[in-house]
Amino acid sequence: MTQREQQRLRTRAAILRIAAEEFERRGYAATALSEIAGRLGVTKGTVYFHFPTKSAVALAVVDSYFARWRELLEEIERRGLTGVGALRWLSAEVAASYREDPGTRAPLRLMREAEVVDTDLPTPFLPWIEVATRHVRQAQERGEMRRELDAGQAAWQIVAGFFGVEEVSWQLTRGSDLVERVEAMWDLLLPGLAGPAGN
Amino acid sequence: MTQREQQRLRTRAAILRIAAEEFERRGYAATALSEIAGRLGVTKGTVYFHFPTKSAVALAVVDSYFARWRELLEEIERRGLTGVGALRWLSAEVAASYREDPGTRAPLRLMREAEVVDTDLPTPFLPWIEVATRHVRQAQERGEMRRELDAGQAAWQIVAGFFGVEEVSWQLTRGSDLVERVEAMWDLLLPGLAGPAGN
Repeated sequence: MTQREQQRLRTRAAILRIAAEEFERRGYAATALSEIAGRLGVTKGTVYFHFPTKSAVALAVVDSYFARWRELLEEIERRGLTGVGALRWLSAEVAASYREDPGTRAPLRLMREAEVVDTDLPTPFLPWIEVATRHVRQAQERGEMRRELDAGQAAWQIVAGFFGVEEVSWQLTRGSDLVERVEAMWDLLLPGLAGPAGN
Repeated sequence: MTQREQQRLRTRAAILRIAAEEFERRGYAATALSEIAGRLGVTKGTVYFHFPTKSAVALAVVDSYFARWRELLEEIERRGLTGVGALRWLSAEVAASYREDPGTRAPLRLMREAEVVDTDLPTPFLPWIEVATRHVRQAQERGEMRRELDAGQAAWQIVAGFFGVEEVSWQLTRGSDLVERVEAMWDLLLPGLAGPAGN
């Protein structure tokens, strides 16, 4: 790769990082490409060289989020995690990344604001519910969760609980208590998922 | 009240109803007072007669939400509900209102978008956590929840769970399954809140 190509990749990554911060903080409609260029200290033309429209930036921000998500799923495989262990590890990793990098929240906000983004974005939550359903089934096979549970419904509630915790933690403490709150969520949910002891 | 005054109140209420729908659907930044006037079939001047700025409309939408919230709390008193019964009733009522009237969601979105609204809005979630804490304490006194629970922490989780369920239901089904999902949330949470049977 030439030096110029490397520089271009760095600029592209910097645009995406700053765009994610702005989308997260101000939302899609209130963010302008000129502000992103201004914060980066480059011309608007440089931003347009990489992304023809604001919606193209939004789509790239969401895409990079899903790339990170796929990495986490591969890491679960490598670690040999299943069932409750996989679910707790995954939720703790996502919580830590939300806390440490506000830009990580941007894709979620963008997907919620899909109405005003002029491009198709993936439906939020569905991929997470699908993955959680698989791990709930494993947990049932391992006797960690009740067999009578509807795995899809339980997974739906786990994902909803996680995002509720993430949202409230963000609004009240900018995520500083998120990791502990997610742990507390599991402590509260597991008795209902596991059923009476010895079941 | 003169006929003209009655007409003004009706117009004000109609502006708030349409504004809530637009704020909910498109967010604060993407909503223009001229669109609200257009949908109502009145001039922009009529909207300005009632609300000098867009942020004044946003604040009035949030205020009317809190007025409705206070009514619900009074209704709990009138019905003599306490503890788990009060929490379940309250969450079912709020779920039903979210499902039936999309405008009810607008204040929550506005409070989350506070960064771009040019006026101070109340912090979301705190009033609900406060009310839930009171009912968790009652539930502990009545033996419906474990005494070792930290009431404030349990209330935080209940409120977060509710809003997570609300959000996912909204994104995936426009709230059509919200009431059942909130019921299912309680079924899942209560064993963890109540502790081992006979405790």
